[in-house]
Amino acid sequence: MHKETARLLELDREHSLVMHIGAILGWDQETYMPPKAIEERSSQLALLEGLAHQKAVNPEIGELLAALEAKSDLSEDEKAYVRVVRRDYDRETKLPEAFVTEYAKEASLSQAAWADAKKNNDFAAFKPHLSRMVELNKKRAHYLNPNAKPYDVLLDLFEPGSTQESVAAVFAKMKSYLIEILTRIRERPQIEDKCSGLRVDKHTQERISQYFMKVLGYERDRGRLDVSAHPFTTTLGADDVRITTRYVEDYFPSSLFSTIHESGHALYEMGIDPNPDYRGTKLAEAVSMAVHESQSRLWENIVGRSPAFWERHFPALSALLGEVGEGLDLESFVKSINRVSPSLIRTEADEVTYGLHVIARFELESALFDGSLNVEEVPEAWRAKYRELLGIEAPDDRQGCLQDVHWSMGAFGYFPSYALGNLYGAQFWAALKKEIPDVEARISGGDTSAVLAWLRKNVHVQGSRYTPGELVKKVTGQALDPVWFEKYLREKYSKIYGF
Amino acid sequence: MHKETARLLELDREHSLVMHIGAILGWDQETYMPPKAIEERSSQLALLEGLAHQKAVNPEIGELLAALEAKSDLSEDEKAYVRVVRRDYDRETKLPEAFVTEYAKEASLSQAAWADAKKNNDFAAFKPHLSRMVELNKKRAHYLNPNAKPYDVLLDLFEPGSTQESVAAVFAKMKSYLIEILTRIRERPQIEDKCSGLRVDKHTQERISQYFMKVLGYERDRGRLDVSAHPFTTTLGADDVRITTRYVEDYFPSSLFSTIHESGHALYEMGIDPNPDYRGTKLAEAVSMAVHESQSRLWENIVGRSPAFWERHFPALSALLGEVGEGLDLESFVKSINRVSPSLIRTEADEVTYGLHVIARFELESALFDGSLNVEEVPEAWRAKYRELLGIEAPDDRQGCLQDVHWSMGAFGYFPSYALGNLYGAQFWAALKKEIPDVEARISGGDTSAVLAWLRKNVHVQGSRYTPGELVKKVTGQALDPVWFEKYLREKYSKIYGF
Repeated sequence: MHKETARLLELDREHSLVMHIGAILGWDQETYMPPKAIEERSSQLALLEGLAHQKAVNPEIGELLAALEAKSDLSEDEKAYVRVVRRDYDRETKLPEAFVTEYAKEASLSQAAWADAKKNNDFAAFKPHLSRMVELNKKRAHYLNPNAKPYDVLLDLFEPGSTQESVAAVFAKMKSYLIEILTRIRERPQIEDKCSGLRVDKHTQERISQYFMKVLGYERDRGRLDVSAHPFTTTLGADDVRITTRYVEDYFPSSLFSTIHESGHALYEMGIDPNPDYRGTKLAEAVSMAVHESQSRLWENIVGRSPAFWERHFPALSALLGEVGEGLDLESFVKSINRVSPSLIRTEADEVTYGLHVIARFELESALFDGSLNVEEVPEAWRAKYRELLGIEAPDDRQGCLQDVHWSMGAFGYFPSYALGNLYGAQFWAALKKEIPDVEARISGGDTSAVLAWLRKNVHVQGSRYTPGELVKKVTGQALDPVWFEKYLREKYSKIYGF
Repeated sequence: MHKETARLLELDREHSLVMHIGAILGWDQETYMPPKAIEERSSQLALLEGLAHQKAVNPEIGELLAALEAKSDLSEDEKAYVRVVRRDYDRETKLPEAFVTEYAKEASLSQAAWADAKKNNDFAAFKPHLSRMVELNKKRAHYLNPNAKPYDVLLDLFEPGSTQESVAAVFAKMKSYLIEILTRIRERPQIEDKCSGLRVDKHTQERISQYFMKVLGYERDRGRLDVSAHPFTTTLGADDVRITTRYVEDYFPSSLFSTIHESGHALYEMGIDPNPDYRGTKLAEAVSMAVHESQSRLWENIVGRSPAFWERHFPALSALLGEVGEGLDLESFVKSINRVSPSLIRTEADEVTYGLHVIARFELESALFDGSLNVEEVPEAWRAKYRELLGIEAPDDRQGCLQDVHWSMGAFGYFPSYALGNLYGAQFWAALKKEIPDVEARISGGDTSAVLAWLRKNVHVQGSRYTPGELVKKVTGQALDPVWFEKYLREKYSKIYGF
């Protein structure tokens, strides 16, 4: 290792420590913090952000990067490391301080305005903030890369290497088969959700969550489960990856699958270790949002909603549910948790329709950034998209274009990651099945460790060694191809709905 | 306010923010942190300590202090503020960096050695570390004030203004009456502890704790109750003062009184507000360890173990205990929680013998620092002190001189605060009773708010405006006098034990 790399690692580790300290404060804020503490907590977080920024823009990093980039004898890991550090360093240094401050202020106002607007179903009140966030993000994109299309720059922030064109190409294929599969499903008799309305107390739901965390291989000495308004996974340290869930008393699958979902994120974080010399640095971070989402969705949907999984674990679930679950049998439970039905709210969507919610947002974002859509037209464009893609229409904007927080924070380009995650997940799964043909038999026999071991070796451990594009090629032998998700969905849902 | 003061406040607030961030990490470490996170957590805390130190030794503080100290027109609060900032600034800047690093390293080794030595009842293994900590503390005292006796310098760190002589004078009086009262009690028939052995599950104990936190006026929107191995109070922000307790299943008074004790600490912290302009700064901090302890012990012992308090709250306690508490009546409960019996372990001692445990440690510390006691003589000197003061002798060092962590961390001069707290508490109580003669009737009528209001106005709100000596004079009209504690004990225990 070059001495410049060693020094870069040192500086980077300090930055990671500060980020992890911030994560501790963030976790506490969402789980246990008393309400009146919020004001000082914001100041504490602002101080840490300032400190992290200060460490991130240290000119010494720029000098070290320049020195390393001039060398021809970097190891593979050094090269990858220089790439990710360069990426973050440019992102941190290219934005003028004044812009960062202005952006933070406007985003905070915008988020507050969105929360009110959603509550009051008042898009007009949010509109000027949405305009401002679009405008500021065009500016931001310009600072980061004046030679690229703004929306491409934003997409790249979440999914390195992706562009509007590449995402559009993938989504076009996905859109056509999702609509086709959905049409077939709608022609079949609808499944009744037998879980709905069963009252399961929080304590029992917590025991169910704990049971499945154990089944999946979540390491309890390196994390924990708590409760928050919105489930999330957060990394407070290399050996401290916590998840949260929430308990809906009359719909226990909500906490069950959110726990499996977040455990999938956590298993990824817990498994990152590309190189012992790079622990606690950017090389030991997840490669992208979409790859992260592939892990949570693979566990939640491909494994966690599969008949094989429940063949093994339904008896345990029944035992934990006790009397309240007496009317539930294996077959109707598996059908219930795989029920497909177009709905208005993305976060409640099933596996088949989820991608359509994302495509709607991607197409609207693309239009907002290429100028073909004005902010005031968003509510009507939203309704039109939902009619086109899902065949339903929101009765109000609260359940329409005001439902998600993302745009209010300026997180344009984020949504595609969610659907790309499904695609990566299915493609990884196909590769895994080629190597472990009896994986379903193993799962129904109670062994998910082969799945975890394969994901660890192929995906988790790599950290940021490869770009998402390189990773999927290395792991599956080909570039991202939406056909794998299609195959997975057809095979699964033709059985469930009998088409 | 002078512009130098305003700038000092600004610098100080940043330092406070960093300290509070550290407190969040510390709280999490003791309550929820998964075990494997400890390694990185130490690095995170070290980073924050470094940052806090850096902010604390900022030379600008020295310049601002010098400028302010040269002025003759400071307001009273400015004067007080300059005094406390000067105190901390000198403490932080007078120790050379190399010494601080060496001290931290040795203290950490010493604490680990102590933990092992205690487990193995092996004083010999701890001895070299104890010698080293004494030696380093002599050095530390010399750096801080070469003209004072080292032990005086150390005492002053915890109780500003106190010296070995002043503490010895107070303790001499206390020792004589404690021994006399204890002798009288021992001549009377012993009380049976009717609470011992009652199995109360954790959930019920938690409900009991929550009930009494509410009774005392603990603000739940500015704090919370959790569980830790050792109960503590910690300030994570001006509006975030959390307490912990622990549940002993066959001795519910343990959590009950530790919760009341910690609530007493928390009520103090929650009430500090000497001046709105000085929020989040050193003026808005507790004045001393002993005054802090006066608040926890006043609530725990003077209020929380009084017949008046239980006249009101025993029915609620009975209701919460349910079936398990059926054999318990008001009178025997109050007697049980006020049982006096010499024991070996300080932290389990009753109100009467507690001070003797502290005097033993104070006398041994004094001797260690004036050279009349060698480290290798500590175990035997400890046994002799306990024979002399409490009439009992530890069968091993684990229950003798190895029981407390303090010396292993180098916290010499800390122990006296615990007993001084009892003295302050009783003196404050006497003053309170003069102003509110019917306080006991109020308490038995269910109203403790008069107590809290009096403490708020006289003690809490002041923060560090006065030194402890000034405060006690201002509040009670006289210097600290151990006679008030004596009066309190005689009155209470002559009734309980009938002498």
